[in-house]
Parts: sequence; structure tokens; C-alpha cells
Amino acid sequence: MGSDSDLPVMRKAAAILTGFDIEIEVTVVSAHRTPDRLFDYAKNAAGRGVQVIIAGAGGAAHLPGMVASLSPLPVIGVPILSSNSIDGWDSILSILQMPGGIPVATVALDGAKNAGLLAVRILGTADENIRQKMAAYQEELRGQVQIKYERLEKNGWQGTRN
Amino acid sequence: MGSDSDLPVMRKAAAILTGFDIEIEVTVVSAHRTPDRLFDYAKNAAGRGVQVIIAGAGGAAHLPGMVASLSPLPVIGVPILSSNSIDGWDSILSILQMPGGIPVATVALDGAKNAGLLAVRILGTADENIRQKMAAYQEELRGQVQIKYERLEKNGWQGTRN
Amino acid sequence: MGSDSDLPVMRKAAAILTGFDIEIEVTVVSAHRTPDRLFDYAKNAAGRGVQVIIAGAGGAAHLPGMVASLSPLPVIGVPILSSNSIDGWDSILSILQMPGGIPVATVALDGAKNAGLLAVRILGTADENIRQKMAAYQEELRGQVQIKYERLEKNGWQGTRN
Amino acid sequence: MGSDSDLPVMRKAAAILTGFDIEIEVTVVSAHRTPDRLFDYAKNAAGRGVQVIIAGAGGAAHLPGMVASLSPLPVIGVPILSSNSIDGWDSILSILQMPGGIPVATVALDGAKNAGLLAVRILGTADENIRQKMAAYQEELRGQVQIKYERLEKNGWQGTRN
Amino acid sequence: MGSDSDLPVMRKAAAILTGFDIEIEVTVVSAHRTPDRLFDYAKNAAGRGVQVIIAGAGGAAHLPGMVASLSPLPVIGVPILSSNSIDGWDSILSILQMPGGIPVATVALDGAKNAGLLAVRILGTADENIRQKMAAYQEELRGQVQIKYERLEKNGWQGTRN
Amino acid sequence: MGSDSDLPVMRKAAAILTGFDIEIEVTVVSAHRTPDRLFDYAKNAAGRGVQVIIAGAGGAAHLPGMVASLSPLPVIGVPILSSNSIDGWDSILSILQMPGGIPVATVALDGAKNAGLLAVRILGTADENIRQKMAAYQEELRGQVQIKYERLEKNGWQGTRN
Amino acid sequence: MGSDSDLPVMRKAAAILTGFDIEIEVTVVSAHRTPDRLFDYAKNAAGRGVQVIIAGAGGAAHLPGMVASLSPLPVIGVPILSSNSIDGWDSILSILQMPGGIPVATVALDGAKNAGLLAVRILGTADENIRQKMAAYQEELRGQVQIKYERLEKNGWQGTRN
Amino acid sequence: MGSDSDLPVMRKAAAILTGFDIEIEVTVVSAHRTPDRLFDYAKNAAGRGVQVIIAGAGGAAHLPGMVASLSPLPVIGVPILSSNSIDGWDSILSILQMPGGIPVATVALDGAKNAGLLAVRILGTADENIRQKMAAYQEELRGQVQIKYERLEKNGWQGTRN
Repeated sequence: MGSDSDLPVMRKAAAILTGFDIEIEVTVVSAHRTPDRLFDYAKNAAGRGVQVIIAGAGGAAHLPGMVASLSPLPVIGVPILSSNSIDGWDSILSILQMPGGIPVATVALDGAKNAGLLAVRILGTADENIRQKMAAYQEELRGQVQIKYERLEKNGWQGTRN
Repeated sequence: MGSDSDLPVMRKAAAILTGFDIEIEVTVVSAHRTPDRLFDYAKNAAGRGVQVIIAGAGGAAHLPGMVASLSPLPVIGVPILSSNSIDGWDSILSILQMPGGIPVATVALDGAKNAGLLAVRILGTADENIRQKMAAYQEELRGQVQIKYERLEKNGWQGTRN
Repeated sequence: MGSDSDLPVMRKAAAILTGFDIEIEVTVVSAHRTPDRLFDYAKNAAGRGVQVIIAGAGGAAHLPGMVASLSPLPVIGVPILSSNSIDGWDSILSILQMPGGIPVATVALDGAKNAGLLAVRILGTADENIRQKMAAYQEELRGQVQIKYERLEKNGWQGTRN
Repeated sequence: MGSDSDLPVMRKAAAILTGFDIEIEVTVVSAHRTPDRLFDYAKNAAGRGVQVIIAGAGGAAHLPGMVASLSPLPVIGVPILSSNSIDGWDSILSILQMPGGIPVATVALDGAKNAGLLAVRILGTADENIRQKMAAYQEELRGQVQIKYERLEKNGWQGTRN
Repeated sequence: MGSDSDLPVMRKAAAILTGFDIEIEVTVVSAHRTPDRLFDYAKNAAGRGVQVIIAGAGGAAHLPGMVASLSPLPVIGVPILSSNSIDGWDSILSILQMPGGIPVATVALDGAKNAGLLAVRILGTADENIRQKMAAYQEELRGQVQIKYERLEKNGWQGTRN
Repeated sequence: MGSDSDLPVMRKAAAILTGFDIEIEVTVVSAHRTPDRLFDYAKNAAGRGVQVIIAGAGGAAHLPGMVASLSPLPVIGVPILSSNSIDGWDSILSILQMPGGIPVATVALDGAKNAGLLAVRILGTADENIRQKMAAYQEELRGQVQIKYERLEKNGWQGTRN
Repeated sequence: MGSDSDLPVMRKAAAILTGFDIEIEVTVVSAHRTPDRLFDYAKNAAGRGVQVIIAGAGGAAHLPGMVASLSPLPVIGVPILSSNSIDGWDSILSILQMPGGIPVATVALDGAKNAGLLAVRILGTADENIRQKMAAYQEELRGQVQIKYERLEKNGWQGTRN
Repeated sequence: MGSDSDLPVMRKAAAILTGFDIEIEVTVVSAHRTPDRLFDYAKNAAGRGVQVIIAGAGGAAHLPGMVASLSPLPVIGVPILSSNSIDGWDSILSILQMPGGIPVATVALDGAKNAGLLAVRILGTADENIRQKMAAYQEELRGQVQIKYERLEKNGWQGTRN
């Protein structure tokens, strides 16, 4: 992540990956304040055995794109609604609108949870076990909704607090 | 893709993948006009051995999100600037802003080329050969820029047609 | 509705319809988390005697459009300003900008009240009694404004608390 | 429609309705240039046996909302991308964002075709014959896509002109 | 104004005009809930001796435009940031983007104070006394800023609380 | 106007005013390129007998606001869609969003025709003759629409070229 | 700055410059309320030895552009998110989108800190001492991030409060 | 510039600087395709005697911000409306909305001419000769407008072709 102020958002990605028993490392790399570290980190990640990079940043967010430029790994960009952001548009557009040649997989504003899930799916392309866990996770989502509609149908809309 | 009118954009993804010697299938699945086909396609893709799905659609684009809902595979969404689109915002937002739980890897508006490259990178997480090809591709991009700046520096900005 | 977190908005539609003595059912169907339920619900609604469907969802809202794809009934879409939404634009555009062939009747952001009233008007096309109730409702709206302007004109703008 | 310059868009609604053998009337009523005509038209429509009103207008589009204010019928609003419009946002927002109490069923920018189809679905709530025609129409859409994907799969993406 | 909920904003216009000793009337006319009253009010205003009309409304704001359609008087439109508004864009665009032929003088979002001042300037075109009061008002604004910069320059930016 | 490149738009205001037999002067005053001229022009206009000022400008349009700052006259601002403008938003917002104290009457993007009509209405507040001409102009607009709907109703929507 | 209500934002620029031992003056000049003062201030600044001007303003912000028009000095514009602003877009666009010929160096919304740093960099073009201080400042930023990532790596993402 | 396709825009900056007899170098540095070159260029510029850097880029434009991160020099960012850009918003926001600490002086969309003039003004802070040339340039702008308004006033708005 570009700043430790992004941690409240980015920890959702960490939680998902940890929940899928996937080994992660979590650190701060600022494209603007630590450009040398950015270069070292991004250039060496693949060699160190990293398989997917999730990069979250706010405002004029250059971290995901620069990492994708410096590494051949798949990079997932998380636009973050920082203070002074203009409703998140700055972060979204500076991550999403990458020029042809350098792809970044962008998720929703503050969508770190989905960034984690996307990383899981990417790792699942070569790991049948992970893919089955993902299918089970999707089944779990269905189950959670089922509890909600059964409760709503049982209590009626007027009897449901919310 | 959601319509064969998306082919001029989406063929760029096909060309990239073919260039990396990756086997692809290209077809039309409309979330709105062929919902049953959407269900069958997305539910069966993983079982058929598909590893990554690239889904491009315009306007209120539901194809990428619905495919991601029905499959455990990584899904790459390509927002397409169709006629009647409002500058592409509709397509971008209906692909990007997925709810937590169902990730879609969104690329830039009409960014099918990057969708192809992202798929290559995803496959490269488990295939050292592909990853090296990706690094070579990035090196090639660098070389193309080098030709440009050498030409510009040689001819000067006044002597360069463009 | 796509989630029970939408109930605070969507109950306004239920209240309107109940106020017009129209029978309703209220449940949760998530396009992304329960796609099979979505298919079953939407495909069977007309056969079960449902006449109009109101579908509310936030973010990249696919529920209204997918229901309209799977059913021949009129579908009213309510964009909902969920958390993480970008001021509601994502929800509005992913409901409003449906491709030609599959219509969704979109109302204002969080406009569940008008969704209920629109359903009443639709049912009124074949039920003179309902239509007269709607005319009476509109007369009532006029009466409410009359109370306000009479009070304002009597007390003056300086004497009116508000 | 608010102006005969809207006819190229609005005739798509007329074509759909005519194709479903539904009787229509097509005329020009300008909220801003013919307010008396607007009042007479909207107030008398229900009494004359009109069942659904489709109102298309561009810019600061007041026609759909004012008709909905003056009539108890369901009103479908078509935002039109007129010259001097700001990418259609003005027309969309002045039709969509109606206050609580007065519903307008808004369709996509220039979405007159879907306005026609929505009117058909509304009439189908009380007419089994129309509803079956709508189901057949949806089946036809599916068939059109089938032709496209079969052609694309047969010729391959490189062999398909488009 | 379109609703008495607009009074907190609109009373600023009333205060300005009263401060300039200009006679005003303040009332509620809803384009959507009291269309007949709208027609009567707007059509008769000029005949009753009204010289300028200030119309404030939120959301899909049709009041200013419809009044301008029904009256030959200058109409000043005040976009109001109501609840459910999309940051005010709906109100701004549905007042500002009037078609050629029917002018509305639009002021800033919630800009009722300037609406009052604009009405004063309009009346000043034929009343030298009012125009001189306006010039004095502008001089007063200058004086207020002078107090501020003198205080700031005296105390220094570090010594100024704010 | 801020530049003679604005003349194609601004001449519509001149044509309206000339059509109402109102004396005008048309010139170029650039806030950014001729600030001294701006000051002289705006400060002296009222003294020279000018009654209303119409100021059109594009991009970061400062002309209308600065004229309103320097003169007690009513100022009508016309946002102009110049090249390099971002769809006109820059021009609209820098004219519309004036701070409290300094009003500008803003019309639609490229809405010079309505600027002219608004000036006519302003002059009509003190001139019964002008006001009657405005009422006649509005009647004429109605007549033009009548020709259009009579033609459309006579020929039918299929028989009307447009 | 255009108003003393801008001081909470603008004092960040003052603090930066003071921290770099650069002499500053801080005052209020309103383009709209004190146009004569604006003229005097901007015309005389260069002659008085001012080297860079930082101008912050909100809404339809004309101060930076008018100062740049009246002075040959580099002018840095700070868009300020004032109350009644539309998410800051008005202020950004009326400062950023200056016509060719009159440059304004625009920084981020409420970006007064960066305005101060930009002024430092500008002065550093002719003062090696200042430039070295800027390099040291950038080094300091790097150090601050280092503290953060070392803490995060030491405590882990689960053990870090934030 | 980030790509030689930006040359048609960026040559305007070169032309301005050359016109002011200021020595320039013009080259292509792509943040995404040549990150190593970016690092070398930006890190060494100050040492080589470069005083101001103008960086133009389109889409998710990372060049200006990364250069500002790596150099203590003033960096002027030019957002460029490239193909696939979303009306330029992506480029504007990813250049403008830099985080606190790393300033970029942003000019208007495609505003390379003003970027050149801003560089001239920056150099003028330490060079009286350049500053006088800038004042003369501003005087020249005034003269160009004078020719236009004299022609317009002489020929009248009806007699002026444009």
C-alpha cells in the first residue's frame, strides 16, 4: 500500500488471503515518497517468488501502474478514497486508465476485499485446491443471503428491523 | 463478448493471446439477450479447462459481473464505449463497482489489449516460460520507445513530423 | 432487493403498495451471490401471477437488468446509494443504460417511493379503481402543499420556522 | 415528444409498438413552448382512453415530469441527446430525479426502443396475448445472438469482418 | 419555492430584497404537486404587478422553467441541494439547460442570496435609486474584506485563529 | 465576449435584441488578455447608459464574474463550449458558481439566444411595450410548434421525414 | 487568498515556506469583492520584489487567473473546497482551464502544502541552497515512510492499529 | 513527453520557449514503458543543469508525478487528451491530485502553450530580462485583442465573418 493510512482498507485483502491459507507479505511502498524502494520492490518481487501483487493507493495513485511497469506479475490495483480525494474519481481513473501494454487489474473503490478474492482466483488457475475453496466460498455467500431472505420472508418487511 | 459489435475492440485481446501462443476461444454471450447461455457458459467454463475469462461489454454491462458470479475463475472485464454510451462511464461503473465477494478485474475503457496482457500475466503465475515471454514483451515496449526518442532527439522537435 | 441492507430504502415501495391495498411479496435476491435463485425467481414470476417486479440494488447493480432479461414482466429498477457507491452514479448507470431490447423502468436514486407509485400506475392501466385511487393520491399531494403555502403566507417567511 | 427534432429517436418507440399491433398516437407537445397544450393533453389523456404515455425530450427536459404530474397514467421518459446537451446528463437527470410522489419510468439515453418495449410490457400485465408476444420477442433476441455466435465460432475471430 | 423545505435556502433571497426595501411575496408553488396552481400563479404574476420571479427547487427542478414558459417576466432559478439530490447536479442541469426561447437566469447551487441581488440589479435598470444602493452594497462588501485583511496583516497568519 | 472566436455563438444574442428593436453594442473584452480594458469597460458601462451586460466566455471563464464585480448592472453570463473545454463543464462552473454577493445570471451552454431573451425580459420590467412584444414572441413559439404537430399528425410518424 | 475562510487551508503553504526560511506575506484579496485591490496588488507585486504568488480561492475562483493576467510572475493556484462548492469541481476547473497565454500552476484540491513546496522549487531554480534543502526534504519524506513500513513489517498487519 | 504521439500538443511548449530564446531539450520518456530511463532522466536532470521540467502525458498519466518524486526541480504537468481518454478527466486527475509532499504544477488539458509560458515565468523569477520579455508578451496579447475589437466595432457584428 502507498501509505499506512490505507491499512484500514487494505487489511480486508490481507484477511481474505489469510482466510484462504495463502501466504502474504504486507508493507508500505510509496511511489512518490520512496521511489527507489518502489523500484527495488517491484523489480525483485517475481524473483523472490511473489506471484501476485495487490497495490492500493489514493488520489493521483501511481503505485499500481508503476509496479505493473516494473514487474511481469499480475498487479491488482485498489483505488482508495483518501481525504482530499474528489469522491474517489482521481484514484479510480489514475489506476484504471493504464495505457496499452501495461495492465492493471482494477477493483472497486475501497474494494480491497475483492482484490484479495481476485488474487485467490488467480492462484486458483494453477491450484485445483484453491479453486475448490473459491467455489465453496461462493456457496457460502449464497448461504448468507439465504439466511437473510428466509428471515425477511418469515418476519415480513414490516417486522424486520433494518 | 456481449455482442459481435464489440469485436473490433475485443480482437485486440485475442491478438495478444495468440501472439503469446495461448489457446483461446472467442464467442458471443449476451447477459441480457441470452441469459441461459450465459449461465451454461459461465458455470461450465472451469470444468472445460478454461483458466481465465475475458468479458467485454458496453452500456449497463452485466456480462463480466454475472460471469464472475457463476464461475470461480478470474474474470477480466473490458468496458466498451458503445454507441449510446455516456462517454463510457456507464460501462466502466457497471463493471468496476462490483460488491464485495465477487471480484472482476477491470481494465481501461476499450482496454482489450491490456485484458489480453493481464490474462498472460495470470497464466504466467504458474508458468515460468510465459512469465519470461512477458518480461521480453516489456523489454520490447522499451525498445519501441527507444526508437522514438532517438529519432526525436536526432531530428529535433521541429524536424519531426507528428 | 439485492441485499437486506437495501430494506430501509425499499420498504417505502412496500408501504406505498400496501397503502393502495395491492398485494406484494418482499424478498432478497442477489444477482451476484445467488444467481440460481435469481434465475428461478425471475423466470417463474410471471407464471406465479406476479404482475410487476420492483428491483432495487446498489453499486454495479445487475439485479434489475437480469430480471428484465429473464422475465416478460415490467421491471422497475431502484438505484440505491449503498456505502462504497460513488455518489450513486454506479447504481444509476448500471440500471438505466440497458441495451435496446431489454427495458428497465428506472426511478430516482433511492426513489423506492416512486417505484411503488409507478407500479400502482401500471396496475391502474387495467383497473379503473386503482387509477381513481391514484388520482385521489395526487389530489392529496396538492392538499399537502396547500397547507404549507397557506401556513407560509399566513405567518410570513420571517415567522415560519424552517 | 417535445420537438419534431426528436422524431429520429422517438420513431423507434412507435415502430416497436406498431410491431406489437398496439394502437398509438404520435404528436409534439412542448412543455416550454406550448404549456397550455401540455396541460390539455396530459389532463385529458386518461379520459380519452390512453393507457401509457411515452414522453421524450432533451436538455432541461420537463415534459415527462409535467405529464406525470397532470395525469394518473404511467409515464415513460426518454432522455434525448439533443444538440447543446452536455453529453445527455442534463436530459437524464431532469427526467430521472423526480421528487417523491410523481413517478416517471426513465429509460436509457435515446432509449426510445426500450420505451416502446416497456409500454408493451405494461400493457401485457393485463393482456396475456401481449405478454406471450413479449416472451416471443425475447426468444427472437436470443435467436439473433445465436446466429452471431455461430457465425463467429465458425469463421473464427480472425475470419470475421467487423 | 417548490417546497417549504426549501425555505432555509430561499429566505436568503427574501432577506436581501427586504434589506433593499423591495416589496416581495413568498409562497410555495410545486410544479409537480400543484400544477394548476403553477399555471395560475405564473400566468397572472405579470398582470398583478410582479416584476421579477425567483423560483427555487431541487432534484428534477421544473418550477423555474415552467414559470418562464408561462410568464413574460424575468425568472431567476435557484438550484437547491435537496436530500436525494446527486450533489446538486440534477437541480443545476434541469434549471440551467433550458432550450432556446425560454430563458431562466440561473444562479449557483443554493445561491438564493445572489438570486435576491440579481433581482435588485434587474429592478435597478429602471430605478437609479436602487442602482445606487447596489453600488453602496458592493462598497460595503469591499469594506468587509478590508476589515479581514487588515486584521490578518496585523495579527499575522500564525496569530489569526481560523 | 471574451474573444472574437465566440462570435458565432454570441451573435444569436445580438440577433434577438436587434429583433426586439433594442439598441446594443457588441465588442471584445478579454478578462485575461485585456484586464485594463475589462476594468474600464465594466466600471463605466452604467454611467454610459448601458442597462444590461451579456458576457460570454469559454474555459475558465472569468469575464462575466469580473464584470459583475465591477458594475452594479445585471450581468448575464453565457458559458461557451470552446475548443479545449472539457465538454463545457469548465465554462459553466466558472460562471455559475459565483460567491455570495456578486450575482451572475447564467444561461445554458452556448445559450446566447436565451441570454438575449433574458435581457429583453429584464428591460421589459420597466417597459410595458417590450413586455408585450415578449408575450407575442412566446405566442409565436407556440405557433411554430403548432405547425409541427399539425404536420406530424397529418402525415403520421411514418410519413414524416426527419 | 480570496477570503479569510480559506486560511485553514492556506496556512499550510505559509508553514512550508516559513519552514524553508523563505520570507512571505499573507493577505486577503478578493477578486469579486475587492477588484481594485486585486488590480493594485497584482500589478505591483513584481515591482515590490515578490517572486512567486500563491493564490487560493473556492467556487468560481477567479483570483489566480486574474493575478496571472495582471502580473508577469509565476502564479500558483490552489482550488479550495468551500461550502456550496460542488465537490470542488467548480474551483478546480475555474483555476485549471486557463486560456492559452495566461498560465496558472494548479495544484490539488486544498493542496496548499504542495503550493508551498512548488514555490520552494521555483525559487530553487536560482538558489542552489534552496534546492539542496528541497532534496533534503524529499529525503525526509522517504525516512517517514521507512518508519512506517518498518513498524508495519515488525508488528504485522494484524498487530498494527490503524 | 510520455509518447511521441504527444508531440502535436507538446511542441507548443517548445515553440514558446524557443521564442523566448530559452534553451530546451525535447525527448520521450515513458513512465510505463521505460521506467529505468524515467529514473535516470529525472534523477540526473538537476545535476545536468536542467532548471524546469515540463512533462506531458495522457490517460493514467504517471510521468509528471514520478519525475517530481525523483527530482527537486519544479515540474509542470500537461494533461493530454489521448485517444481512449475519458474526455481528459483521467489525465487531469492523475496529474493534478498529487499527495502532499510532491508538487506538480498542472496546466489545462492540452495546455502545453501555458506550460511553456509558466516555465518562462519561473525562469523569470531570477532573470529580469526574461521577466521583461514576459511583460512584453502580455502586452502583445493585449494588442492582438485590440485589433479584434477594433475590427469588430468597425464592421459591426453583422458585418464580421466568423
